[in-house]
Amino acid sequence: MTKYMDVHHGMKGITEAQLLAAHNADLAIEGDEKVHFEKAWADPESGTVYCLSEAPSADAVMRIHERTGHPASEIHAVPITV
Amino acid sequence: MTKYMDVHHGMKGITEAQLLAAHNADLAIEGDEKVHFEKAWADPESGTVYCLSEAPSADAVMRIHERTGHPASEIHAVPITV
Repeated sequence: MTKYMDVHHGMKGITEAQLLAAHNADLAIEGDEKVHFEKAWADPESGTVYCLSEAPSADAVMRIHERTGHPASEIHAVPITV
Repeated sequence: MTKYMDVHHGMKGITEAQLLAAHNADLAIEGDEKVHFEKAWADPESGTVYCLSEAPSADAVMRIHERTGHPASEIHAVPITV
């Protein structure tokens, strides 16, 4: 399992309730791909969302985000953490 | 105080020791600007580093990263977290 950071653009004006709803939708089906979404941070002004997960592959993360209607703009394995 | 996510590009091949050294350099002087760097994640393959902090302003985060020799490519306030 590797950690991934994915980035969503174009979410201008996102609210805490909307971020929570999106995160909960991911959590509800993440087990199908053995992904776990740990945390998400949103900048409503620029419309950027960062999402940290642990998963078997970037594709697995992508598939969950696609199924819940918010495909990521980019995704990076982040094997190094401090 | 607000949370900020800053992103560094061009760090291809960064090692855990290098990320730790950079993070420790930030921690050593962060108090000068009332910033606290909480966590950093690195993707050595694409050379991307994400850095989460709590700070009084984006400029304060920038000044610390500049003084330690690794200015951020972008920085976003992330007031919403789940």
